[in-house]
Amino acid sequence: MSEYVTPYKTGPGIGVVEKKFFTFALPPNLLKLESCASIGPVTIAYETCGRLNPDKSNAILVLHALSGDSHMAGVYDAKDTKPGWWDIMVGPGKGIDTDQYFVICSNILGSCVGSTGPSSINPETGKEYGTCFPMITIGDMVESQKALMDHLGIQSLLSVIGGSVGGMQVLEWCTRFPDRVRSAIPLATTSRHSALAIAFNEVARQAIMADPNWSEGHYYSGKKPDLGLALARMIGHITYLSDESMRLKFGRKLQNRSALSFEFGAEFQVESYLQYQGNKFIERFDANSFLYITKAADYFDLARQYGEGSMVKAFSNCTAKFLVVSYTSDWLYPTYQSKEMVKAMKKNDIDVSFCEIDAQWGHDAFLLPDDRLGNLIKGFLKGVSNDG
Amino acid sequence: MSEYVTPYKTGPGIGVVEKKFFTFALPPNLLKLESCASIGPVTIAYETCGRLNPDKSNAILVLHALSGDSHMAGVYDAKDTKPGWWDIMVGPGKGIDTDQYFVICSNILGSCVGSTGPSSINPETGKEYGTCFPMITIGDMVESQKALMDHLGIQSLLSVIGGSVGGMQVLEWCTRFPDRVRSAIPLATTSRHSALAIAFNEVARQAIMADPNWSEGHYYSGKKPDLGLALARMIGHITYLSDESMRLKFGRKLQNRSALSFEFGAEFQVESYLQYQGNKFIERFDANSFLYITKAADYFDLARQYGEGSMVKAFSNCTAKFLVVSYTSDWLYPTYQSKEMVKAMKKNDIDVSFCEIDAQWGHDAFLLPDDRLGNLIKGFLKGVSNDG
Repeated sequence: MSEYVTPYKTGPGIGVVEKKFFTFALPPNLLKLESCASIGPVTIAYETCGRLNPDKSNAILVLHALSGDSHMAGVYDAKDTKPGWWDIMVGPGKGIDTDQYFVICSNILGSCVGSTGPSSINPETGKEYGTCFPMITIGDMVESQKALMDHLGIQSLLSVIGGSVGGMQVLEWCTRFPDRVRSAIPLATTSRHSALAIAFNEVARQAIMADPNWSEGHYYSGKKPDLGLALARMIGHITYLSDESMRLKFGRKLQNRSALSFEFGAEFQVESYLQYQGNKFIERFDANSFLYITKAADYFDLARQYGEGSMVKAFSNCTAKFLVVSYTSDWLYPTYQSKEMVKAMKKNDIDVSFCEIDAQWGHDAFLLPDDRLGNLIKGFLKGVSNDG
Repeated sequence: MSEYVTPYKTGPGIGVVEKKFFTFALPPNLLKLESCASIGPVTIAYETCGRLNPDKSNAILVLHALSGDSHMAGVYDAKDTKPGWWDIMVGPGKGIDTDQYFVICSNILGSCVGSTGPSSINPETGKEYGTCFPMITIGDMVESQKALMDHLGIQSLLSVIGGSVGGMQVLEWCTRFPDRVRSAIPLATTSRHSALAIAFNEVARQAIMADPNWSEGHYYSGKKPDLGLALARMIGHITYLSDESMRLKFGRKLQNRSALSFEFGAEFQVESYLQYQGNKFIERFDANSFLYITKAADYFDLARQYGEGSMVKAFSNCTAKFLVVSYTSDWLYPTYQSKEMVKAMKKNDIDVSFCEIDAQWGHDAFLLPDDRLGNLIKGFLKGVSNDG
């Protein structure tokens, strides 16, 4: 296995924000996947904030959700007006304090924002993989992240932190590489998808695959399945909100009208909001990546993978200290699923703190400004740092 | 206005089950709609069970939900193996006892199972209406049902009973024609859609309209938007179930396999179940009807229509006795929405009983066998009959 680093951009932002690319699994040493297929070369795009201390003991790995990317905080240059996706949490003095910690975020395997995925070029054909891309798992994502940590010379992570599909990666890190993780913060996540969560993902996938432009996944030289991907995003987006948040934000308010139009088309504000979300998404995301990542999330099942069906057994090798956080209004991964994990951790005498945050914003709450989560994370990380 | 009746089928079934068609609003006297458009002629398909007593005081109108039809109970003949959609509730000795009551169920305006809807022939063009069909409301559905009651000579209904979109029609009957209704049973319903409910309907509609075969609604002479309609049904179907019911019914069970296939396609049982539901639906339902009826449900807002925004005011003219029923696991129309109605009724000194049934089956619970609902309805109807 060989490796190289391509510096990409360095900007003022918060402290030092760097975006880099790390490529590994060069032929003939390909990355072996859980499905038994192999793939290579594999490029992982990653961003770092803060400075790694001399003994490399202050590194934190932040893991993004389904549609996120490696750009977690700050801006790259003056033209970059949109800060990273977790800018509320990562920065000087923030919940994850970049004055103290070296924070890394990498784009997940299978995605389309710098890391290798179905829209990457298949070296065997010289064309985009499309659906010739092998099926990947949360475990495969974590394997590629581990290669990145090896490359950076980080033997022990102070913490792994992530929400939703990022939280699944957190759990996978702790069970797959228990000796590489000192603490872990899985947020608004689950150890396995419920039938309800699988159902929503499957309908979203069907929406993409029903779009004639999808062309069995080989659409890169022609029209893209935009309508299908927008629909998939709309379906997903509903599950990220809550009944209460939608009522407070939209209720039955009409869009630019005082009376009903008696026509099809976006008439209620919630309808135009969803259409806006769908249309915004197709500009930045690849439909095949959506298929692969949702499938990886559906496959994820910690108890099956590591405990022969027992969640208690699955956590038996974990040594990390945990902070588990759920949200009252998250109906995609409800609190009972977090409690199930916490119970299994406790049976293994794992040091775990659990907090259910009372918030109305649904599953997406961890992405919204709220001092409570920032304070919880800051306090927890301080404790872990002091543990030495 | 002229009218006629075409007997359709009479069969053994339970007692006497008759399916008939009633056509009214013949030109030039068209049915005036809430949108200010007009339509005619209008045919309403309806079924009756039981016998109307001489003073016509034992008539009950059953109102079906989104995809239902007039065939509520029994079978028409020996070849008809599938009984009506509410056979568990309507029949001799059942919750709605056809030995005592004359029970009517009509297919709603805008549907595609006998009554006039977008798949009907537009007399002006000699072709199917498609999206030239005018937008309809729950009020318009009830107007057409009232014409049927006039035709049958039924001045006063012993009860109007329905769940979901059928429950909206129940509420509309009680506020639009208060002197024609002696009692009412709205089940698993709401007086207005939440933003969440509108969101799901809108995404389902978008799925249909994104199907290239939809052809702006004029597809009757060509390929139908089957993929879009199947998707719409899958989205809807998820909202009719609950997290718990899906967990108990499917969990993470695989379809015909013991290990993951690492392929796209129905792999988990819940996926193939949803695909089955979608594919079954396209054989019996019209995509445009789905668009029109979901839009009517989204428009429905009792407080806006009858109370200038106040639900208390909306119920101020109601004289019916009410039995309101909700289900603990119904997250499409949660109990708080039923309680809101009940509170407004009580402020008007309306005689209302409210029951939240503890059931895991989600919104669809009222369609599933459960003695509790049958007993509640039977007892309530007995009380109303005795009042009579």
